[in-house]
Amino acid sequence: MTLKVYVDRMSQPSRAVILFCKLNRIDFEEIKVDLSKRQHLSPEFAEINPMKLVPAIVDGRFKLFESHAILIYLACVFPGVPDHWYPADLFRRAKIQSVLDWHHTSLRRGAATFVLNKALAPALGLPLNPKLAAEGEKILTASLSKLESFWLKGSGKFLLGGNQPSIADISLVCELMQLEVLDDMDRNRVLSPHKKVLQWIEYTKDATSPHFDEVHRVLFKVKEMLKTLRSTESSLNKKVQSRM
Amino acid sequence: MTLKVYVDRMSQPSRAVILFCKLNRIDFEEIKVDLSKRQHLSPEFAEINPMKLVPAIVDGRFKLFESHAILIYLACVFPGVPDHWYPADLFRRAKIQSVLDWHHTSLRRGAATFVLNKALAPALGLPLNPKLAAEGEKILTASLSKLESFWLKGSGKFLLGGNQPSIADISLVCELMQLEVLDDMDRNRVLSPHKKVLQWIEYTKDATSPHFDEVHRVLFKVKEMLKTLRSTESSLNKKVQSRM
Repeated sequence: MTLKVYVDRMSQPSRAVILFCKLNRIDFEEIKVDLSKRQHLSPEFAEINPMKLVPAIVDGRFKLFESHAILIYLACVFPGVPDHWYPADLFRRAKIQSVLDWHHTSLRRGAATFVLNKALAPALGLPLNPKLAAEGEKILTASLSKLESFWLKGSGKFLLGGNQPSIADISLVCELMQLEVLDDMDRNRVLSPHKKVLQWIEYTKDATSPHFDEVHRVLFKVKEMLKTLRSTESSLNKKVQSRM
Repeated sequence: MTLKVYVDRMSQPSRAVILFCKLNRIDFEEIKVDLSKRQHLSPEFAEINPMKLVPAIVDGRFKLFESHAILIYLACVFPGVPDHWYPADLFRRAKIQSVLDWHHTSLRRGAATFVLNKALAPALGLPLNPKLAAEGEKILTASLSKLESFWLKGSGKFLLGGNQPSIADISLVCELMQLEVLDDMDRNRVLSPHKKVLQWIEYTKDATSPHFDEVHRVLFKVKEMLKTLRSTESSLNKKVQSRM
């Protein structure tokens, strides 16, 4: 029975799960749960994930949600997944678990709050919220500093000094890719001081090519759409002001 | 070499780690990092955990932080830890991982925000914040409903329908015990509609006795201290008002 993966590629943990499946040639059926159409709130999807969030999987009779739990499960039950994604070594595994736990309350919280309230909200039919955007940016900036000074402090290309990526690299890089939908000035202000982070994103892209670009394609489309929207709004505002 | 556990028992994840060690007769040295004295912000502690949070452990040359990562590590590397805490069965393990991930962004976030801003802040030299308390209560109440209707829906005594506790039961119950420092009226308003949650807390206490009470003793002392503080403030306010 084929693994069913319930996702919206606009969701960063959804992309991490799809990317992992593609990289490891796991046979899966992608079922889109369109967040902009609020399909995640439907009674049908509540049968899959009562928390009404993507991603979620159904593997035969087994249902699971929460992207980190899904990535760990897939790495453990599908044959042929290389060890580096979720090492059998208990010490390395514990460190990966530590990054993933840290991610929930720091990088994830900062990036998701910032991106939603600074740029993405209109695409979901929601208003922007400058106050929440500022709070998100503060958490995000502090988290990026910790990424740079601690998690990426080793000599290797990846988190924890590894020379091959783990599920933590996929999860955190997919999170940071969400910053692509921001205005370039905002994105650069936040990311550009963190050279090691930028280099690590490139290493992760290279190590997961060509699937990385394919999985993120939708994000670049939304980036263009939001750019056009902002530019139209800006010229409308200028016209209104010139007539006042 | 003895396991070193850096904790403040006023921190709910710190209590979960100590409780787990005691229950499993893991030989450990408890090193207090006094949050009220801001010892977690000291350069010495930054050497142990650069994120400046408790709990953290040092096991020989190996350092680790994030309580879920610590609980999983301890369950895996210490001999003689019964399987029910973190089952070898990959399906049960995945579900436990899913609860723990959910905990970060729902129950944890709600309970910690609510308790800090409604009651605990003065004990840490911080002001109460009614707006943040209200936001925390909203997340907490929604999370308690999900606990009741989903995670505790099975016929067993514990999360996911189990008849023996897992690390998730310890982690989540230690979180909810933090509500003890609230005014009884506040605590009852939030908890009492959730009968299954109350029953599960009792089951977890029973299964982890007598260590549970010992580990939580400090919390009851702080509860009494805050009660006295509130009562003194209230009678002072009445006196001031009667003279106006």
